[in-house]
Amino acid sequence: MSTTPRPIPFGIMLQGPGSHMHAWKHPSNVPDASVNLGYYIDIARTAEDNGIAFGFVADGLYINEKSIPHFLNRFEPISLLSALATATKKIGLAGTLSTSYSDPFTVARQFASLDLLSGGRAGWNVVTSPLEGSGRNYGRPHPEHALRYQIADEYLEVVQGLWDSWDDDAFVRDRDSGTFFAPEKFRRLDHKGRFFQVEGPLNIQRSPQGQPVIFQAGSSDDGIALAGKYADAVFTHAPSLEETRTFTQKVKNSAIAHGRSAGDVKIFPGIGPIVGRTEEDAEAKYQAIAALAGLDDALAYLGRFFDHHDFSQYDPDAPLPELGDIGANSFRSTTDRIKQDAREQGLSLRQVALQAVSPRPNFIGTPEHVADELIRWFDAGASDGFILGFAAQREGLDDFVTLVLPLLEARGYHRSALEGQTLRDHLGLPRKASRYSTDAEPARKAG
Amino acid sequence: MSTTPRPIPFGIMLQGPGSHMHAWKHPSNVPDASVNLGYYIDIARTAEDNGIAFGFVADGLYINEKSIPHFLNRFEPISLLSALATATKKIGLAGTLSTSYSDPFTVARQFASLDLLSGGRAGWNVVTSPLEGSGRNYGRPHPEHALRYQIADEYLEVVQGLWDSWDDDAFVRDRDSGTFFAPEKFRRLDHKGRFFQVEGPLNIQRSPQGQPVIFQAGSSDDGIALAGKYADAVFTHAPSLEETRTFTQKVKNSAIAHGRSAGDVKIFPGIGPIVGRTEEDAEAKYQAIAALAGLDDALAYLGRFFDHHDFSQYDPDAPLPELGDIGANSFRSTTDRIKQDAREQGLSLRQVALQAVSPRPNFIGTPEHVADELIRWFDAGASDGFILGFAAQREGLDDFVTLVLPLLEARGYHRSALEGQTLRDHLGLPRKASRYSTDAEPARKAG
Repeated sequence: MSTTPRPIPFGIMLQGPGSHMHAWKHPSNVPDASVNLGYYIDIARTAEDNGIAFGFVADGLYINEKSIPHFLNRFEPISLLSALATATKKIGLAGTLSTSYSDPFTVARQFASLDLLSGGRAGWNVVTSPLEGSGRNYGRPHPEHALRYQIADEYLEVVQGLWDSWDDDAFVRDRDSGTFFAPEKFRRLDHKGRFFQVEGPLNIQRSPQGQPVIFQAGSSDDGIALAGKYADAVFTHAPSLEETRTFTQKVKNSAIAHGRSAGDVKIFPGIGPIVGRTEEDAEAKYQAIAALAGLDDALAYLGRFFDHHDFSQYDPDAPLPELGDIGANSFRSTTDRIKQDAREQGLSLRQVALQAVSPRPNFIGTPEHVADELIRWFDAGASDGFILGFAAQREGLDDFVTLVLPLLEARGYHRSALEGQTLRDHLGLPRKASRYSTDAEPARKAG
Repeated sequence: MSTTPRPIPFGIMLQGPGSHMHAWKHPSNVPDASVNLGYYIDIARTAEDNGIAFGFVADGLYINEKSIPHFLNRFEPISLLSALATATKKIGLAGTLSTSYSDPFTVARQFASLDLLSGGRAGWNVVTSPLEGSGRNYGRPHPEHALRYQIADEYLEVVQGLWDSWDDDAFVRDRDSGTFFAPEKFRRLDHKGRFFQVEGPLNIQRSPQGQPVIFQAGSSDDGIALAGKYADAVFTHAPSLEETRTFTQKVKNSAIAHGRSAGDVKIFPGIGPIVGRTEEDAEAKYQAIAALAGLDDALAYLGRFFDHHDFSQYDPDAPLPELGDIGANSFRSTTDRIKQDAREQGLSLRQVALQAVSPRPNFIGTPEHVADELIRWFDAGASDGFILGFAAQREGLDDFVTLVLPLLEARGYHRSALEGQTLRDHLGLPRKASRYSTDAEPARKAG
């Protein structure tokens, strides 16, 4: 692993008030942050002005009374990202959209359109929808885990095919000859597969970055295989440096197994640093966040990962109960981790729930300590960057850009100005060549 | 009909270079207008600064080599309108989305999100997709005309139901008590119909205008019935004052038959005024536009309304051939009108095709003449306003705002500043009350 300083790319979650279930109560946030466009613009501009490479909008397709408050009422990703495109200049704009409940022609268009209107800044976080209830909003049964990933695989093949409908120089727009496009640079897809039949072409040209960046966020084996085949970037957990590095290696090996190289897929663990001028400051900030949720909240929050299982029926001070397969079709890698931690550390239900709702971040302390840790992870090859998901967004971001980024910059691990123009530039990825391009590197055969 | 002056609401098509098939060649436009965000922003701001009530983005889900050039390569409506939301302040933002190739949960979210982030400026133009080829991009058979309208009817019932998922005051966000929402103001839809099963609720609150404005653009009997039941505004043709007035009365009668009042649905014929300082100026501008398309272009353009039928196989100077049912499942009202005009006026194929591709607008001439005509139509009750679809966008809009709007304003038929804040304000429509609101006017029962 290289230890020559080089900038660490950061993304930032754009999820209203922050990642904590009750972040809306945190005094640094406006309470309606999840539906306040001005707030999103402020956050995106703060990030952009400080050299953060991209914003990342998560999403979900099902809510009920027990959902995380700011999930009940939030902007839809395509519309939010497009609105931010005209309010910002350089920051990348990535968002979640599910392959289980959408049509590839529509999704290919929406991300291509966002990509083109933002000047090449779009990223699509491909998810398969963990929540069972999503099917009830779309009038069809929720596909089981393996089937969802089979659908996603063919879906990506179709979307990337549609994105290459027109060669880069297809639109000549020559007024003298009346030639709008070159017919031989128009590519019909004619996809006929197990799940999708899509004729094409897409009615939009390629963007300055060729194709939108593909993010992938599933950490199961199926998710890793999908990432290895298609993803430009992976959003994952950050349980520890060692585990994250192991995961990173797995994904890169999966990419290599699909004929790509290790550098073709960038790994971004999500972290929520809490920074104070002193250790005590940081601890006090963490305690203020943890105080936002009591035991009832914590049990409901835990239930969310287990198909809204009702944990209030158990003795909170007994060990985490046996849960069998509950949740295995939803957030599988998260529920496996929770059960494993509880078993290994002998945790009570109360401890499991409170740790789930207000996790102590693995980056907490003084600016120097947090900067040291980030550099240690990065230099150790644990990841290619980080996605910042602050428990309390406004305070977390302001502390991070004020206290940590200048230290990283002084040590050669950050640049406060985004130098490139596209999201691929910011991530150190080359422009995506069309599969029909003759001067491209040998293209991976999709499918 | 009242002849007291009152402002005429105008909308403007946002369709790249204009409505003419070869508008991209017009010297007033940038050739890449359909994918040039800066161009759209300039047009939208010109419109907004001159008191035009809304922009309107048309759409289509199928292209081939014979499509209108700027349809081959254009932004997708949700992303474009959302990008314009942050680049403008008051202008309404309406766009087309098809009920035949989308999911109501997704579409309800996207328009609700656009509506909320724009401060209550969204409108949805409900179409059922005329083009047969759309089905081949979505892997399913294109439903026939009547079935498409049955689907659209239930679809709108679902979407409007989802938009009322949360009462206006549902989100209390009281930090002291920890109450984010009032549980009794949360409404699950539980729709179980012939085409759709949707549980709900939607994960977004109502906007300042209650619900996005519903536009409807089909002029067939099925379209008129759908408009009478659901539409706040109708986009239609403007063949002549009398025919437009007859159509307007039909839609208003349909609204009354559905328990609504005539004023609940506003009729907007699409017109493409050509204005010159003199009659000769205006004629020269029209001839310059007509010269953009030759006979081959015209025959291909005509074919577009008839399932891309190949008209080049016929003698152009013979009468329009018998076409039977070709095109009846697509642009039915347009094809009926073309065939009727050809029959009644004894037109050759050449004349039909040239008139189709470069129609002489029914508002052409000096500023005084065009202003007179607009006032005459408006005062005669032919419509409630107009949607401006200039053949050549940049020239057409600049002429209209410079030469015609000041005359209308001097006569009390225009205000150059938008006074309201929401699209409903601009159209003279009240805020849409929730179906659950107790202080609402008696709500029409949907379905």
